[in-house]
Amino acid sequence: MANPGGNGATFDILGIGNAIVDVIAHADDRFLTDRGITKGGMTLIDADGATSLYGDMAPGIEMSGGSAANTIAGAASLGARAAYIGKVRNDQLGEVFAHDIRAIGVHYDTPLAETGPPTARCLILVTPDAQRSMNTFLGASQELGPDDVDAALVAAATITYLEGYLWDPVHAKAAFRKAMDIAHGAGRQVAMTLSDSFCVDRYRQEFRELVDHQIDILFANEDEIKSLYEVDDFDDALQAVRGKCDIVALTRSEKGSVILTGDEVHVIDAAPVAKVVDTTGAGDLFAAGFLYGITNGLGPAESAGIGGRAAAEVISHMGARPEIDLKTLL
Amino acid sequence: MANPGGNGATFDILGIGNAIVDVIAHADDRFLTDRGITKGGMTLIDADGATSLYGDMAPGIEMSGGSAANTIAGAASLGARAAYIGKVRNDQLGEVFAHDIRAIGVHYDTPLAETGPPTARCLILVTPDAQRSMNTFLGASQELGPDDVDAALVAAATITYLEGYLWDPVHAKAAFRKAMDIAHGAGRQVAMTLSDSFCVDRYRQEFRELVDHQIDILFANEDEIKSLYEVDDFDDALQAVRGKCDIVALTRSEKGSVILTGDEVHVIDAAPVAKVVDTTGAGDLFAAGFLYGITNGLGPAESAGIGGRAAAEVISHMGARPEIDLKTLL
Repeated sequence: MANPGGNGATFDILGIGNAIVDVIAHADDRFLTDRGITKGGMTLIDADGATSLYGDMAPGIEMSGGSAANTIAGAASLGARAAYIGKVRNDQLGEVFAHDIRAIGVHYDTPLAETGPPTARCLILVTPDAQRSMNTFLGASQELGPDDVDAALVAAATITYLEGYLWDPVHAKAAFRKAMDIAHGAGRQVAMTLSDSFCVDRYRQEFRELVDHQIDILFANEDEIKSLYEVDDFDDALQAVRGKCDIVALTRSEKGSVILTGDEVHVIDAAPVAKVVDTTGAGDLFAAGFLYGITNGLGPAESAGIGGRAAAEVISHMGARPEIDLKTLL
Repeated sequence: MANPGGNGATFDILGIGNAIVDVIAHADDRFLTDRGITKGGMTLIDADGATSLYGDMAPGIEMSGGSAANTIAGAASLGARAAYIGKVRNDQLGEVFAHDIRAIGVHYDTPLAETGPPTARCLILVTPDAQRSMNTFLGASQELGPDDVDAALVAAATITYLEGYLWDPVHAKAAFRKAMDIAHGAGRQVAMTLSDSFCVDRYRQEFRELVDHQIDILFANEDEIKSLYEVDDFDDALQAVRGKCDIVALTRSEKGSVILTGDEVHVIDAAPVAKVVDTTGAGDLFAAGFLYGITNGLGPAESAGIGGRAAAEVISHMGARPEIDLKTLL
């Protein structure tokens, strides 16, 4: 296990994920049911599906998104030395993505796609209960491949953080595996989020193998970890995953989080939120705060507390990137 | 003067303006002073200036904007039959602009620019005092010309609403004049906002002539009307403009508004706002509510009350378009 701090790393955290711009609009429950959209989930859509759904949606706001990118942006806002790998096209939304992640202090130099589909977008419908339902057109993010994984960058990061969503684009899985191998070869750690329970459904066996053999720090919410082990009860899932990774961070929305490390189980309360506006990015920002803490030598409970406060900030407004300088949470 | 309601009009309000996508980010006062940006104003920038400023800005959110477009979007949200004319390019931000204005219920079919500069964007810096400082790259909105003014559409609207900002792009002035002539020829009314005190500085003589001879309903804030008549005192400006138009609606931020109609002076209090987050769009949404009222047969004081409530909604969050269905304000 790499030694956080003083380990010769140039970056605390490197994230690799689908580089996406979010288009966020309010919708009522009827809008979802009429279109067969799974509430709270992430559904993949093609270009025609995106055009059709966008045409029906209410006026929106555009903001940079992408799960691992949100985490890395949050970590940078907290003060981590952060880098990101993900693919956009040389179009206006790609420019927005690149600007936003660099402007928050993240090292980002993945080559732009010069041809092919446009920058990925996620059409996010926020219902009156503040739940978000995501519809993702992967676009240029599908062009991410092993060649985009800069070996020196991976070797220079204390933790490489990968999103389960990378199993969806064809070539990204190879990029994911390459990054894991480089990180471990350099004595670094690999963290992963299971991303979404439907994503776990699609890749359960592969994800179980990753968790068993490759992942040092695992992030999952309650639905995802239950899906991974096909159990109905959270405690059963917790027992199933216990001991599989150095650290397992399980998030439970308003019930807070549970962190498993070696023999220890830390139960952490959720941070208070005056009004939940949009839950998009809650898990991403928990991971941001947790990884910031871990890479700064804090213990799992304290790190989870920072994660909870970062998540509380992001669900208090529309969008999955922090609205404030997260250093004020420390 | 056209008779609101039962006048054979297909639309209550037609807006013509610079079609712009806003890029909104927080900034501190030092950021403005370091770059010589006039706080609270609208500064025109070229493509290089936009690239340079954007490169320095914090992460942003993208939302449709444009002064008259915001007004028309607000009026549509209130329930007005609304249409809009303004030029975007066939690019991603143009698609965003067209989607958002149609999605809120506005008739919009101005032909897209197929060549030339990209869709206009306004880089908006919101300082901790919630003041907004706008830096506009006019881009494709400069391509708006008289040919884009659909005579049948203008003749079919009870009120044609024009922004003073149209004096900035080269050809838009001719479009403005063409629309005024058609509207008056069809027995309709022409409304105009002076837009910005620096815009008034640039075109004072022409704006005075418009106000004297062409405008039926004039909107201006305190700084703009003082700039128009080059006086330091609001009451002097009020006396100077009195009687020049059928209706003069003067907005004074937290002091509310003053409406002049014939011999009457109506003083209306501002609507309460729990927390002012971003003042972008305050004047635009006041005009939306006021025009909605007037075209629905309400009196000037009641119409100004709706305008005040619409303005209060838009300054309670980031961005210049309503976040809620404004019908709930009625």
